[in-house]
Amino acid sequence: MKKNIIKPSILPGFMELLPKEQEIFNDIVSKISKTYEMNGCLAIDTPIIEKADVLLAKSGGETEKQVYSFQKGKNNLALRFDLTVPFARYVAQYYNDLNFPFKRYQIGKVYRGERNQKGRYREFYQCDVDVIGKGKLSINNDAWVISLADKAFREIGLTNYKFQISNRKILKGILNELKIENQVDVMILIDKVDKIGKEEFISELNNLIGNEKSEYLNQILMFNGSNEEKLEKLLEINIEDEYYNAGIKELKTVKSMLEVLGVDKKSFEINLKIIRGLDYYTGTVFETILVGNEGYGSICSGGRYDNLAENYTENILPGVGISIGLTRLFFVLREIGFVDKYNMEDNQDYLIIPIGDTFQYCGAVLQYLQSKGYRASIYFEDDALKKKMNYANKIGVENVILIGEEEVENNEIRIKNMKTGDNITINYDLFVGK
Amino acid sequence: MKKNIIKPSILPGFMELLPKEQEIFNDIVSKISKTYEMNGCLAIDTPIIEKADVLLAKSGGETEKQVYSFQKGKNNLALRFDLTVPFARYVAQYYNDLNFPFKRYQIGKVYRGERNQKGRYREFYQCDVDVIGKGKLSINNDAWVISLADKAFREIGLTNYKFQISNRKILKGILNELKIENQVDVMILIDKVDKIGKEEFISELNNLIGNEKSEYLNQILMFNGSNEEKLEKLLEINIEDEYYNAGIKELKTVKSMLEVLGVDKKSFEINLKIIRGLDYYTGTVFETILVGNEGYGSICSGGRYDNLAENYTENILPGVGISIGLTRLFFVLREIGFVDKYNMEDNQDYLIIPIGDTFQYCGAVLQYLQSKGYRASIYFEDDALKKKMNYANKIGVENVILIGEEEVENNEIRIKNMKTGDNITINYDLFVGK
Repeated sequence: MKKNIIKPSILPGFMELLPKEQEIFNDIVSKISKTYEMNGCLAIDTPIIEKADVLLAKSGGETEKQVYSFQKGKNNLALRFDLTVPFARYVAQYYNDLNFPFKRYQIGKVYRGERNQKGRYREFYQCDVDVIGKGKLSINNDAWVISLADKAFREIGLTNYKFQISNRKILKGILNELKIENQVDVMILIDKVDKIGKEEFISELNNLIGNEKSEYLNQILMFNGSNEEKLEKLLEINIEDEYYNAGIKELKTVKSMLEVLGVDKKSFEINLKIIRGLDYYTGTVFETILVGNEGYGSICSGGRYDNLAENYTENILPGVGISIGLTRLFFVLREIGFVDKYNMEDNQDYLIIPIGDTFQYCGAVLQYLQSKGYRASIYFEDDALKKKMNYANKIGVENVILIGEEEVENNEIRIKNMKTGDNITINYDLFVGK
Repeated sequence: MKKNIIKPSILPGFMELLPKEQEIFNDIVSKISKTYEMNGCLAIDTPIIEKADVLLAKSGGETEKQVYSFQKGKNNLALRFDLTVPFARYVAQYYNDLNFPFKRYQIGKVYRGERNQKGRYREFYQCDVDVIGKGKLSINNDAWVISLADKAFREIGLTNYKFQISNRKILKGILNELKIENQVDVMILIDKVDKIGKEEFISELNNLIGNEKSEYLNQILMFNGSNEEKLEKLLEINIEDEYYNAGIKELKTVKSMLEVLGVDKKSFEINLKIIRGLDYYTGTVFETILVGNEGYGSICSGGRYDNLAENYTENILPGVGISIGLTRLFFVLREIGFVDKYNMEDNQDYLIIPIGDTFQYCGAVLQYLQSKGYRASIYFEDDALKKKMNYANKIGVENVILIGEEEVENNEIRIKNMKTGDNITINYDLFVGK
């Protein structure tokens, strides 16, 4: 009777890689986490499933529709849709056990039922850093978290990224000054400017706040020049609003701290059109573009929030954070050819191939190689030598060690370098340096 | 108006750690994955959510009841309940792109709605290695995968574990010889022997197969002595069944290969009572106990299966695998005091504390330290020195670097070793070796 075979497949919107690309993906993960750790961040790991009422305490609108939620027994459950909300819950829950400012990083999968389209994933990795203060938190941290993304990108080998930085208080100050009441609508519109294009943007802005105010606002949003020149122009405008002045002061500090922390001037620019949706941000906001590949959108975003965990505690917990959307970034890096050129070590240094029953000897060689820190394994199958060498070729191992009965008898090993084709036979004691 | 505060909490049966324990947990993860990689295993990462019909192709019974499954739109989804089924699907799906024998490892979370009890988690990490052959796979691999668990445990610093190894063919052969038809019932009973105790076991076995056969079987199951002695006794029994003979031959090979691969004789023993439930295993099976803490159950299990992916492909794919149940293991290690004594490096080498506005100078020091591979960060908050030093103490940093205006002026840095209390002030150029 023939068995019923189910076609093996995964859900649309989920990324799955072959081993070779997975190795590169994991290498990137480990470079990011190492960067975070080298800078004093502590790792946490929260459940992927949480109580729905806890996870959705704040949300509503678009996010809530995208959440994977379901019942199990009597419980309403939901899969996390970002790492920030669980972190807010975590900080509130373990408040008395944490040291503030608390610098935490977390790398993990999150879930959103997005419309299925190229480069948008329903399961994706976020690599987050947040610093949380008790009651207050220095603006210097805003620059510091961005500098961590900068270090991580350099570690990966990226060169062509640019942080786009703004401060929401500046826009709020201008809108206050212009006595605009529907500020949220204006922010939603500005957030879309790259999507809809400049012309449509201006026409919609005219409709929203009238031609005169629109022109005034637009002129500021579109400031050209170096970061210094932009800051200077902002200072020259005669706006007395307190948000405006606070925003400029903060932005100035972030700019100079970025330089202090070693971020290249060419790697960031002030861009007042950055809003970051209707998220919880209250000050610094930023996105990151790949220069020449802006169409793929932001690969790392974040900002400052006044009070992280207000749904879970009465303690005031200001913070600032970044999130690298790694699954999306990897997709982009693959599209632009970066993954193909990624410099990855060979996954294995030595494959030990027994010819005949020489396993005992092979076992000793294996243990010696691993004690010296080499990646190594034994080919166990009883195949023809040609098939064994073929396998060695395919897995891309650097050296093959051949051990037949002759080698065992003479206490030798035969090493073939698979790149150069060189063959040497040396005495085992010499090889292990006895 | 007072905000509505939701009590921050997670679901029962989910593990969440404070940063200090998380660091130890992550260190164990990285030691296990490094061990797997050093031995030539390739990493894969599969989605946590899969199509329900694919994931549940084989199951039924206990497992299916425990699965987290739900609908999203028109799709029936399920969370993976182990890493083996997704791996079977993966191998079938990418069959033509993989090199066989394919040695893969995967570390990730899986989900089972188990009854809530101490040490049982509903979300838990598994750390799996499997080797899959195309049509055939040498028995040597059975020893090899166990040797990887052995290496991983030694890497972590565990010493008191013992692999309990059997081969299902032996039991099958005995039951064939005894002409027992309800073999599954007998296996279910043997699987429970540690839970129900020897007396009840014998009484139930008597009921099941009669006193005479029961005594015969029992005598074999309870063989004492060294591994060699057990094998010898098995060989002495006059059973001509082909399963029986094949099982003994395999078990003998596994035993001697374990020694070849450097597994200490004291770390494993033949135990014919090992069954591994009604899983897909067909040959070698093993569990791992912590000697002196047997009550916690197996911390690493696995075995050989004839055909991994029979639900997804007509290709015959024999394999053998191990799985370390890390969340459970961590729970046990915490209970027995191992976590408390775990030798963890300090999470940070240097905390740079500015006194006054000396950030520029601090930034240079930070960059120098990190270029030398030290973990370091700057204390950014505008707090009293006492509070800053207090923070340094709490986070357990090894050295504090104090930089006030005087230090900047004199081009010096002041270093305080937090363990010894020693203070030194040295010239910055000397410090950086200019």
